[in-house]
Amino acid sequence: MILLNNQFVSRDEGKVDIEDRGYQFGDGVYEVIRVYNGKLFSLAEHLERFKRSMVAISLKLPYASETLTDNLKTLVEKNNLRNGIIYIQITRGAASRNHGFPNNTTPVISAYTKEISRPIEALNSGISAHLVEDFRWLRCDIKSLNLLGNVLAKQEALDHGCQEAIFHRGERVTEGSSTNVFIIRAGKLLTHPADNFILNGITRRYVIELACQLGLPVIEKSFTLNELLTADEVFVTSTTQEVMPVVKINQSTIAEGRVGKWTQLLQNAFESAITSP
Amino acid sequence: MILLNNQFVSRDEGKVDIEDRGYQFGDGVYEVIRVYNGKLFSLAEHLERFKRSMVAISLKLPYASETLTDNLKTLVEKNNLRNGIIYIQITRGAASRNHGFPNNTTPVISAYTKEISRPIEALNSGISAHLVEDFRWLRCDIKSLNLLGNVLAKQEALDHGCQEAIFHRGERVTEGSSTNVFIIRAGKLLTHPADNFILNGITRRYVIELACQLGLPVIEKSFTLNELLTADEVFVTSTTQEVMPVVKINQSTIAEGRVGKWTQLLQNAFESAITSP
Repeated sequence: MILLNNQFVSRDEGKVDIEDRGYQFGDGVYEVIRVYNGKLFSLAEHLERFKRSMVAISLKLPYASETLTDNLKTLVEKNNLRNGIIYIQITRGAASRNHGFPNNTTPVISAYTKEISRPIEALNSGISAHLVEDFRWLRCDIKSLNLLGNVLAKQEALDHGCQEAIFHRGERVTEGSSTNVFIIRAGKLLTHPADNFILNGITRRYVIELACQLGLPVIEKSFTLNELLTADEVFVTSTTQEVMPVVKINQSTIAEGRVGKWTQLLQNAFESAITSP
Repeated sequence: MILLNNQFVSRDEGKVDIEDRGYQFGDGVYEVIRVYNGKLFSLAEHLERFKRSMVAISLKLPYASETLTDNLKTLVEKNNLRNGIIYIQITRGAASRNHGFPNNTTPVISAYTKEISRPIEALNSGISAHLVEDFRWLRCDIKSLNLLGNVLAKQEALDHGCQEAIFHRGERVTEGSSTNVFIIRAGKLLTHPADNFILNGITRRYVIELACQLGLPVIEKSFTLNELLTADEVFVTSTTQEVMPVVKINQSTIAEGRVGKWTQLLQNAFESAITSP
């Protein structure tokens, strides 16, 4: 079953109009929520960010947010999802095509679940990343459907045999194509501040909290390409990638190609959090 | 009737899957082609640009381009369209959501016609424009479905009682939210060069040709906000807006609030071109 607006329908009924503004303008926002052992992880934080993204593009949820919360929980139950994700998006709905907002159009919500397992092997061995000049718009803080820049960067990384693209605006590293980027240098954790250049990841915030608890000083400050490539440790975070070590970037080996000490401590702390009852 | 892939179906069958990459990533490109008196205006140029946009995002037309041409002409005939537009888009198709390109997915084409008339009143009186800092990505030369920046700018203009938003990157004017921008200064026509900061409009190119024929020197070179606001004449161009005079920008009146001499000559030349048999 999937959720379409306020109804549960079968997957093959998951169709939208060709003039849905999500389809013609990418005029909508989304969230990906992780489900561990049947429980929606950091649900409140995801829904809060979902609302923030909606506000940023002047979009309103067509029903009470409590109803949305109930719908998402019901979706997980109906699909007997134990481990996986919920994908949810909202668009401005279908209207005769004009750039400006249409009048009296009802937003369209679509949500579905997908079973996925944790990327255990990659979490243990680390991934390779490829550097891409950040050519995206200046509102990367909005989790919008305008993801073509991220798509093209990710594909470029895959074409180079890497698993993630790391964006940089000139010398300054911003974020990954679907992750946030962290480095450890001289016993400190650095990551780009949550401004308009990056998406403020839920896992990003979670990891910052965990680092504080572990006594690892956190500095939310942008760092350079050189600081990235010569870091003691590098990892990226996301809802599905968790705390993912990066052991190679372009031709540079990071942390001797192994998962660094602090990265491992953060992975352990994260694993405790998601497996706690 | 509408065109869905290679078939003509009724409008209410114009539905696409919620996991179409056009819907989740804006992973597709489009064209808007003007139809005057039943004829597709500048069809070859539009289809050439359509292909160029596809190449830019590594997308391939799933059938011969001659078939597409035939389909578009048939669509106009089937709908007895005399004056209006064809909207056509192609997306990478439906696939389980991952940023990287999916394997073996068939692109989805959707096209439909819409009756519209020429904006005669506005062409005679001119429009007002509102300035917006250009916060879009750096591949505005691709006519992609990632239009949220254009949408938000257009809406900001509408909220200010204007009909178009004019983007500027710092001091440099780039283009409108759905148009190209031209100014006339000291008997010369200036417009931003066709690089990655703007879409190379079909009407833009057409107007440049007409200007040459009229003996109006054309300089494809970016100009500043101050040059815009103190220009002798300003107009914007697009497939539906044609040669649209701009008589007010924010608080500045342009050309004493009237349609300028050169703008009118270009309008006349354009009108001759579209009404020629």
